[in-house]
Amino acid sequence: MATATSIRKIPSLSGLHHRRNPLEENTFFHPSNSFYVTPSDVILSQVAYDFSADSQPRVAYHRAGPRQEIMYEPSAVKAAIVTCGGLCPGMNTVIRELVVGLWELYGVREIYGIPAGYRGFYSMEAIKLNPKLVHTWHKKGGTVLATSRGGFNLYKIVDAIQHNGFNQVYIIGGDGTMRGAVEIFKEVSRRKLEVGITGIPKTVDNDVGIIDRSFGFQTAVEMAQEAISAAHVEAESAVNGIGLVKLMGRSTGHIALHATLSSRDVDCCLIPEMEFYLEGKGGLFEFLEKRIKEHGHAVLVVAEGAGQEMIPRNESQKQEKDESGNAVFLDVGVWFKSVLKEWWEREHPGELFTVKYIDPTYMIRAVPANATDNLYCTLLAHSAIHGVMAGFTGFVSGPINGNYAYIPLEEVAQTKNEVNTSDHKWAWVRSVTNQPDFEKNFKGQTP
Amino acid sequence: MATATSIRKIPSLSGLHHRRNPLEENTFFHPSNSFYVTPSDVILSQVAYDFSADSQPRVAYHRAGPRQEIMYEPSAVKAAIVTCGGLCPGMNTVIRELVVGLWELYGVREIYGIPAGYRGFYSMEAIKLNPKLVHTWHKKGGTVLATSRGGFNLYKIVDAIQHNGFNQVYIIGGDGTMRGAVEIFKEVSRRKLEVGITGIPKTVDNDVGIIDRSFGFQTAVEMAQEAISAAHVEAESAVNGIGLVKLMGRSTGHIALHATLSSRDVDCCLIPEMEFYLEGKGGLFEFLEKRIKEHGHAVLVVAEGAGQEMIPRNESQKQEKDESGNAVFLDVGVWFKSVLKEWWEREHPGELFTVKYIDPTYMIRAVPANATDNLYCTLLAHSAIHGVMAGFTGFVSGPINGNYAYIPLEEVAQTKNEVNTSDHKWAWVRSVTNQPDFEKNFKGQTP
Amino acid sequence: MATATSIRKIPSLSGLHHRRNPLEENTFFHPSNSFYVTPSDVILSQVAYDFSADSQPRVAYHRAGPRQEIMYEPSAVKAAIVTCGGLCPGMNTVIRELVVGLWELYGVREIYGIPAGYRGFYSMEAIKLNPKLVHTWHKKGGTVLATSRGGFNLYKIVDAIQHNGFNQVYIIGGDGTMRGAVEIFKEVSRRKLEVGITGIPKTVDNDVGIIDRSFGFQTAVEMAQEAISAAHVEAESAVNGIGLVKLMGRSTGHIALHATLSSRDVDCCLIPEMEFYLEGKGGLFEFLEKRIKEHGHAVLVVAEGAGQEMIPRNESQKQEKDESGNAVFLDVGVWFKSVLKEWWEREHPGELFTVKYIDPTYMIRAVPANATDNLYCTLLAHSAIHGVMAGFTGFVSGPINGNYAYIPLEEVAQTKNEVNTSDHKWAWVRSVTNQPDFEKNFKGQTP
Amino acid sequence: MATATSIRKIPSLSGLHHRRNPLEENTFFHPSNSFYVTPSDVILSQVAYDFSADSQPRVAYHRAGPRQEIMYEPSAVKAAIVTCGGLCPGMNTVIRELVVGLWELYGVREIYGIPAGYRGFYSMEAIKLNPKLVHTWHKKGGTVLATSRGGFNLYKIVDAIQHNGFNQVYIIGGDGTMRGAVEIFKEVSRRKLEVGITGIPKTVDNDVGIIDRSFGFQTAVEMAQEAISAAHVEAESAVNGIGLVKLMGRSTGHIALHATLSSRDVDCCLIPEMEFYLEGKGGLFEFLEKRIKEHGHAVLVVAEGAGQEMIPRNESQKQEKDESGNAVFLDVGVWFKSVLKEWWEREHPGELFTVKYIDPTYMIRAVPANATDNLYCTLLAHSAIHGVMAGFTGFVSGPINGNYAYIPLEEVAQTKNEVNTSDHKWAWVRSVTNQPDFEKNFKGQTP
Repeated sequence: MATATSIRKIPSLSGLHHRRNPLEENTFFHPSNSFYVTPSDVILSQVAYDFSADSQPRVAYHRAGPRQEIMYEPSAVKAAIVTCGGLCPGMNTVIRELVVGLWELYGVREIYGIPAGYRGFYSMEAIKLNPKLVHTWHKKGGTVLATSRGGFNLYKIVDAIQHNGFNQVYIIGGDGTMRGAVEIFKEVSRRKLEVGITGIPKTVDNDVGIIDRSFGFQTAVEMAQEAISAAHVEAESAVNGIGLVKLMGRSTGHIALHATLSSRDVDCCLIPEMEFYLEGKGGLFEFLEKRIKEHGHAVLVVAEGAGQEMIPRNESQKQEKDESGNAVFLDVGVWFKSVLKEWWEREHPGELFTVKYIDPTYMIRAVPANATDNLYCTLLAHSAIHGVMAGFTGFVSGPINGNYAYIPLEEVAQTKNEVNTSDHKWAWVRSVTNQPDFEKNFKGQTP
Repeated sequence: MATATSIRKIPSLSGLHHRRNPLEENTFFHPSNSFYVTPSDVILSQVAYDFSADSQPRVAYHRAGPRQEIMYEPSAVKAAIVTCGGLCPGMNTVIRELVVGLWELYGVREIYGIPAGYRGFYSMEAIKLNPKLVHTWHKKGGTVLATSRGGFNLYKIVDAIQHNGFNQVYIIGGDGTMRGAVEIFKEVSRRKLEVGITGIPKTVDNDVGIIDRSFGFQTAVEMAQEAISAAHVEAESAVNGIGLVKLMGRSTGHIALHATLSSRDVDCCLIPEMEFYLEGKGGLFEFLEKRIKEHGHAVLVVAEGAGQEMIPRNESQKQEKDESGNAVFLDVGVWFKSVLKEWWEREHPGELFTVKYIDPTYMIRAVPANATDNLYCTLLAHSAIHGVMAGFTGFVSGPINGNYAYIPLEEVAQTKNEVNTSDHKWAWVRSVTNQPDFEKNFKGQTP
Repeated sequence: MATATSIRKIPSLSGLHHRRNPLEENTFFHPSNSFYVTPSDVILSQVAYDFSADSQPRVAYHRAGPRQEIMYEPSAVKAAIVTCGGLCPGMNTVIRELVVGLWELYGVREIYGIPAGYRGFYSMEAIKLNPKLVHTWHKKGGTVLATSRGGFNLYKIVDAIQHNGFNQVYIIGGDGTMRGAVEIFKEVSRRKLEVGITGIPKTVDNDVGIIDRSFGFQTAVEMAQEAISAAHVEAESAVNGIGLVKLMGRSTGHIALHATLSSRDVDCCLIPEMEFYLEGKGGLFEFLEKRIKEHGHAVLVVAEGAGQEMIPRNESQKQEKDESGNAVFLDVGVWFKSVLKEWWEREHPGELFTVKYIDPTYMIRAVPANATDNLYCTLLAHSAIHGVMAGFTGFVSGPINGNYAYIPLEEVAQTKNEVNTSDHKWAWVRSVTNQPDFEKNFKGQTP
Repeated sequence: MATATSIRKIPSLSGLHHRRNPLEENTFFHPSNSFYVTPSDVILSQVAYDFSADSQPRVAYHRAGPRQEIMYEPSAVKAAIVTCGGLCPGMNTVIRELVVGLWELYGVREIYGIPAGYRGFYSMEAIKLNPKLVHTWHKKGGTVLATSRGGFNLYKIVDAIQHNGFNQVYIIGGDGTMRGAVEIFKEVSRRKLEVGITGIPKTVDNDVGIIDRSFGFQTAVEMAQEAISAAHVEAESAVNGIGLVKLMGRSTGHIALHATLSSRDVDCCLIPEMEFYLEGKGGLFEFLEKRIKEHGHAVLVVAEGAGQEMIPRNESQKQEKDESGNAVFLDVGVWFKSVLKEWWEREHPGELFTVKYIDPTYMIRAVPANATDNLYCTLLAHSAIHGVMAGFTGFVSGPINGNYAYIPLEEVAQTKNEVNTSDHKWAWVRSVTNQPDFEKNFKGQTP
């Protein structure tokens, strides 16, 4: 390998003054020279490659971590933290660590929580935070700051930032929230405000691109496995029983895939990245018939975004659009429960059959983060703090190949992490479930 | 107190021969004289009473436990075990302990599991069981024997018992199953078969009367508490959020009541034993309005049988009857979710509002029994075995005031355990939630 | 049955004035007439009896619960709560419910926590408590008030009660603490102070007599089962492996017994109530040899008080006495680990052998209460409050045959709940483990 | 970056014949071309670098995964699986997946488990394994095959491999086991046997180098966090209480570090990679004094290898050496408990003080793997299978920067993964605990 490397640039605030990192004077730390990250420390984004074919320039990102010089006078920092969108395990840990990190590492004393998502900037009063207040928050599910969807009003938000004198803004939320953060970053730049804006992607579905995985995901998979286990018990204890579990994942099936691989109790896993069909040769019904015949039961895991185009919509559902103008999602679990019953009654009239449908959504996402995610959230929050203190803005911090890096916010907002169904991990699902290869058969079959 | 005591008689098999309990020869046991239970050992059913008023005869039941003489030659026993109805934590423990107890304590070697409920007697092959096979079953949820509803065909079942030569039948199931067991007991008597019939009441709802509580109930409450905790997190993390949890309990609200008292996160608990109303003074909406105003959120727990008469039914739902000819149950959780939304939009148009609805049913009942229930199931199974071996039939064993007793099967099949809403436990719910006293207001108010 | 009943008298404060229970005016309650408990409502203590033999007078206790008349003006109440001795799951729930119950049910506003046990009365400042402060305490292990052993100085404590004007004292602690509470009650009476004293027995070992079981016990058994499960895995995964678990229980083996019955993975359970011996025919070594030969491993559960007289003591250990003048306890687990190794090396020199010793004590007792115990603690605390408000003093509240009653403090302080090794429950342990009947052999054998 | 890359060579079996991967004919798979890994697919080992300074050649490893051509006729494969050393969560998952993967993906039917570690090769009978038998093993802690330390007899082992006709050997174990595997690989090569040897590093301590982390580590951290939580509750509930937890880690402190970062309840974390001292300025006692004064309690986490050189040894302990000739480890927890007590009695005679010491070792390592580790074990096992089937030998598979790669066995056996105390992760521990920087002070201070 001897190829050029392109390093992704992170915007910086320009009008601030350099000063030594206060970690230098820390009573407990005594950082060595190797402790600080320099501008030339980078993280390669692509580590798996074909050396016979490869000649493109590689992409690298600036490494996250403390810089020897920072751009804020700690006593002049006024930081705001906001959480938007649905719940995800670990949100409170991120908030806690932002507060504790700013306070303990950098001596910041003005830290505010914006309640109830974006709308809180302009319609509610910010809550002053300190380490004592947030001390046990990492042991609680949800977000103590509260959250909401929508409420994004760019000018009101930036007016509020300006009016309150916030010069650091930490925005925790999903892809919609990140797109909003890009807008805020741009408007703040336009107004030439010296405000550091950073996004911390929160998506229990793990559908954010570039970074290795999103926080809370491991916890969600752990809980999803319990729902699958219950469905398995219900199916096994019945005559011709099907355990049906709907898992989160509107456009990506990561939770379904991981929970399937972790639990081993699943007969078939359906995700949005994959087409499937019900009737006929190679179809789902044929497969379930076979499994029920062999084992007396079957377990079916469906990501919420799978099969959306197959669910019949009534007129009002056809008209209904979500905030972004897309067709609304219908409940694939409820639909599946009814088509499975119809199928069985048609094919096996009078024979016993049971479908037990579990929708564990809120029991998955409302739990506290497990140890793995708690640690992840800590490193994430500290990375964000170091970056903002160093003067970066319009960025996201996150692990790339296991190392924390800074990534342009816009790049994250535009990238989607989908399950690659031609990759080995998906092959492993299929080797675990031996489920039909719908896509192949579907496309390959001649009518 | 100086009142007469009436002791409930348990039917006995008559044609069998007495022999010494083989526990006498146990290598490890060496039971003392006080070890055996005698016919005059009884358990009082009513321990709380008003001594100034009390003069009725008291009811007592024969104490459960090993008798010095038994009525079966162990090598001639052929036992059948069947599980019917829905799942409940601990079913596998009961099965395991019946097998291990019969085998280890009495030397029985012919023990069979009837698969898939009552219908398994006449339509499937029985499974031979032994201690090695069932060794770890108590760590599994559900029932390894499988279960089903219905399938009760009296003559086919008794024919099968007769044909297979089963002379002990252990029937694990809910109230319908117990009524079936009474029929089997009667038919067996009519045919003058020397077959011991015992019922082991299984109801996750704890709605069986006379006995202290049913197995699996403590485990169910533990899990229900987790669902409430998730609902509480969701509600707290939202703006004007309501967490709504539907818990099992078609005619009785024990799980809802216990989980409410255990969790403390509930604002209002609605059960079938209690009337309530939504609109107007003292109604649920007024109360929720107040709570949301005070705390920003509220948690509502609803037993599945609560408010059934308030849910509007379409024509087909009006016609639909269950097996017993009663109106079918509608989903009170789904209904509540929609009326809550309508109410809020009507009263607070444009204001944020969220209802997160959790139906944890299968995640509650499909788990393995916890330590408390595992121990309970062991004592229950051993009590049943001792009773059957002693020649009793047509009975149920269960704890009365903490002591295991034998109760006529018919009495159990006819008695219902409802939440007493004029009792202290319900008062405690209200002191925990401070929810409105609908019944009182409702009845007291003038139109 | 037609025997006389003796009802245990509870001391009452005499100088106070009667007034109607403020529950009468509760906005939410509207108690019916049957809601209140009257002086003639009692709970029988013995429900299992032999009706052919029985003619002794029976014992009954006053039923716990709200009285229509109370003896304190709520605004004049100044309540103190203290926790003494070792940790036990549920202590925080009891504290929380005392605070919430006094506040919500009776309108008491002066409620204080005494920090760090008895010594806190005279050496530390009391902490003012209210429902908001204690709101989530039931979800935390340990005791937020902190606890300590000893520090009992009768005159200083009663002086402090008098000086601070406390007129209700709630004392949560073990048997030593209860004996102290009796002293406080007597000294308070001597001084003619109108102070209600109630004891809430806390013992993770479940060794308190009269009441059905002590709070936290079910949680402790649940956790003990996990330790046994780990020991079982370690033993099974080794060649000739022994898993050794020491469980709490200095004079009684309830946790060991219950955890053994719940887990089913135990080969032998040793408790203080039972003698045993190691060497020779019928001894423990012979039994373990047999089990290891059959299954390749064995699991041994030992209560901390078992076999104390068998452990060799050095001179200083012989001298050492605890606060009560008894010989100190030595670590039976450490001793067992070493004698097991010596035995194997002697009998099987050169052969593989592993003992994995687990002492889970603090991981068992420091957890939050489970749902069952949380509910129990609530009913316990409310029972205590109702009793004190009604003017009772020198009493303990607790469940007797499933119903809450008031018991003279002195009676509780003097009674011990031991495992009855001639009873069925212990027989069940032996039928589960098939362990040798040491006592029998031991006593039966001729030297 | 424009530097040369050195690709680590993996030995291959030479005498075997190429054939198409049977996945080609899989009913469910239909792998695309991009599915197979080619010899030029590699994984970079170093992704974080300083682009201004960097000019060394980089190291890359062959990517793990299925090859289009394999080197074994599946029907001629006879595979052996062995587990050595101590327990670790996930061992059973690795065994299960090796069996299921060989069977389902490649059609191998001769798969054997070697019982009880290395010695099982020559002293016990191998157990034939199949997917049905291992179906639920991933839900069990420990290793069903059993394990032991030592027993490594090179010639006997290779004789047994040869004699039994094993041509694939999967060795699961720690660093000592891996060094043994290197010897086996070399001896097998010397004898020119066509036997594929692969090592799967198992170390709950996470002390294996090159790979990202070892399996079971995340589960161990999760459980360690619970022990810390119990210690925290004990310490908080006492007056001047110290909670002391000893965690696994003889030469590396990864579990201690991760559990400290995850739990946030730790005041000081001591690991083998760091020196510390007790007395004097900047010492541990001074620090604990301060914390106890401030918070009333402190929590101390100690890795088992920390401070070994500070523990006084008696003569026999000085002589005792382990199998490798090193001084044996003494119990740092027991030692700490006693020095802490001595210190307090010396400095605060008569004042209350409590040390609660928890050693959760077996409760951590004997549990089943969590979801994250279960998935990891699956990918690990499948990677190993693909590599062996492709003809590689003398290698280890494992994740490098999140991608599975093949690494020479010898390289893994020689590399140690230590906590880098000059790195950010350790800095984060210190920012969480604010514990003293012993090393710095220690070195800096003048005597």
